[in-house]
Amino acid sequence: MPFAVTILGSNSAIPVYGRHHTAQHLHIQNHHFLLDCGEGTQLRLQEFGLKAQRLEAIFISHLHGDHYLGLMGLLSSLHLQGRTKEIHLFGPPQLSEILTIQLRYSDTTFRYPLHFHPLTMAGGEVIYENKKITVTTLALQHRIPCVGFVFAEKPHPFRLNKDRLPAGIKPGEIALLKKGEDVPDGHGGTKYAANDMTLGRRKARSYAYCTDTLYLPELAESIKGVDMLYHEATFLTEKELKATKTYHATAGQAAQLARDAGVQTLLLGHFSARYKDLAPLEEEARKIFPRSYLALEGETFNINNG
Amino acid sequence: MPFAVTILGSNSAIPVYGRHHTAQHLHIQNHHFLLDCGEGTQLRLQEFGLKAQRLEAIFISHLHGDHYLGLMGLLSSLHLQGRTKEIHLFGPPQLSEILTIQLRYSDTTFRYPLHFHPLTMAGGEVIYENKKITVTTLALQHRIPCVGFVFAEKPHPFRLNKDRLPAGIKPGEIALLKKGEDVPDGHGGTKYAANDMTLGRRKARSYAYCTDTLYLPELAESIKGVDMLYHEATFLTEKELKATKTYHATAGQAAQLARDAGVQTLLLGHFSARYKDLAPLEEEARKIFPRSYLALEGETFNINNG
Repeated sequence: MPFAVTILGSNSAIPVYGRHHTAQHLHIQNHHFLLDCGEGTQLRLQEFGLKAQRLEAIFISHLHGDHYLGLMGLLSSLHLQGRTKEIHLFGPPQLSEILTIQLRYSDTTFRYPLHFHPLTMAGGEVIYENKKITVTTLALQHRIPCVGFVFAEKPHPFRLNKDRLPAGIKPGEIALLKKGEDVPDGHGGTKYAANDMTLGRRKARSYAYCTDTLYLPELAESIKGVDMLYHEATFLTEKELKATKTYHATAGQAAQLARDAGVQTLLLGHFSARYKDLAPLEEEARKIFPRSYLALEGETFNINNG
Repeated sequence: MPFAVTILGSNSAIPVYGRHHTAQHLHIQNHHFLLDCGEGTQLRLQEFGLKAQRLEAIFISHLHGDHYLGLMGLLSSLHLQGRTKEIHLFGPPQLSEILTIQLRYSDTTFRYPLHFHPLTMAGGEVIYENKKITVTTLALQHRIPCVGFVFAEKPHPFRLNKDRLPAGIKPGEIALLKKGEDVPDGHGGTKYAANDMTLGRRKARSYAYCTDTLYLPELAESIKGVDMLYHEATFLTEKELKATKTYHATAGQAAQLARDAGVQTLLLGHFSARYKDLAPLEEEARKIFPRSYLALEGETFNINNG
């Protein structure tokens, strides 16, 4: 069962060197999501063979153009390609007004229901939930209101030990075992013991997405133990003053946070246009947190669960 | 002196097959303009080596997303790259509201003056003028208000015949000759005759840009004799009913208009996503108007003036 993050765009404000504005595609089990939607995101999806029509929900972190200016074009293309299935959109409340007036002046009504969910922008809220996943916001600190997102799998069912399952076991009994519960024999005893018939659960995986933000050491608490952290690393430490002034972070700060939060893997992104060569950003991060990687466009980062 | 149209995007609503949303770069003498600005236009400018900072004015035909969704990103990049020089923007009045709320919610104030000139959308108005060029609107007919644009050079000065010019001729005398006027001798006679000292004018060139619109035969009158006509050719004649229903035109209709208007060259564009192979569109147009060409992205079409 996949848990895969594909980088669609990794640059900050100005798109250069073939690097584009921020967007990421998330494939968790059989669900497909989009994280931010910079200009040209629909083209990046095409380029990397990811079907936009499969998207169930789109999450927008904040209203700087490099994080949402591709949204109207993407939503329009879904409409023109005949989508009728609903889509959910999560973002700052004002995003609704921006889309509404663009739709009004183009005299367009989408064929599909677009459910807009305004975020409080406070962080710490569960904003999306299905049988398998929850999405929670993170309070970030940027020049304008901005949130991060944590995508977390709910506990997986217990895996059945097929070698041990008796032939005549009933569906209801299997359901109990999958929850890790013993099957009672109806006389106060146990018919099948869960720890005998199951192999334990697969690990529930999680991904935290943090851009754009100042370095917030306290964030470590909220993202403690996530498997993968994407954190903006707009600048090198030598530009830390500039990073702070523009409400951004350095590669070193991202690595520090990854270490403090005890994550498995750190992805670095939202690169400044001043860096044609990105290797120094990765090097800087790896000195503090060795499992740091550049979030290069077109790359897919998988989280395995054994 | 150049008069060059570079195609940045040539597709209609859905960007496919490496074809992008509408935008064109115009280089007339030492002036640089942008016609429409679909999503990703700033990237196309980069790709084709055209400097966005040189743009003096941007003209938006109408408010369907495929003609303006790249505008906010382009204007933002000009700002972030340090532009301080003013820029002029011409478009439907509501465009101002769309940009204003996006600027408000991103808490952005451009460093450069952005002069917005709302169009009446009626056509037939001179909306821009400098020493060398005028831009006039054309009334088009689309699902929402839409105008075309004619870029026309003003009459060039008379070229001086250097073999005939006397050594001591004064700047004021040259100025008169360049206007095609005789230089008086101060006693009621002629010191230098214009037709003796000059070689005539270079041809004043013109370009008409018509997208998106129904086929309007009466347009031939307004664009009579322009050197180059760009006309949308969204469909083949076999889809004429669909073209009419969606307020678009066919390649055959574009060619008919080019013939009726007596233009030199016809550029076909705004191709439907249904056509992967565009050759049939060109073939259809050439049967009616042989000097028809596909407006392929990255191509530059020059108008010479001998």
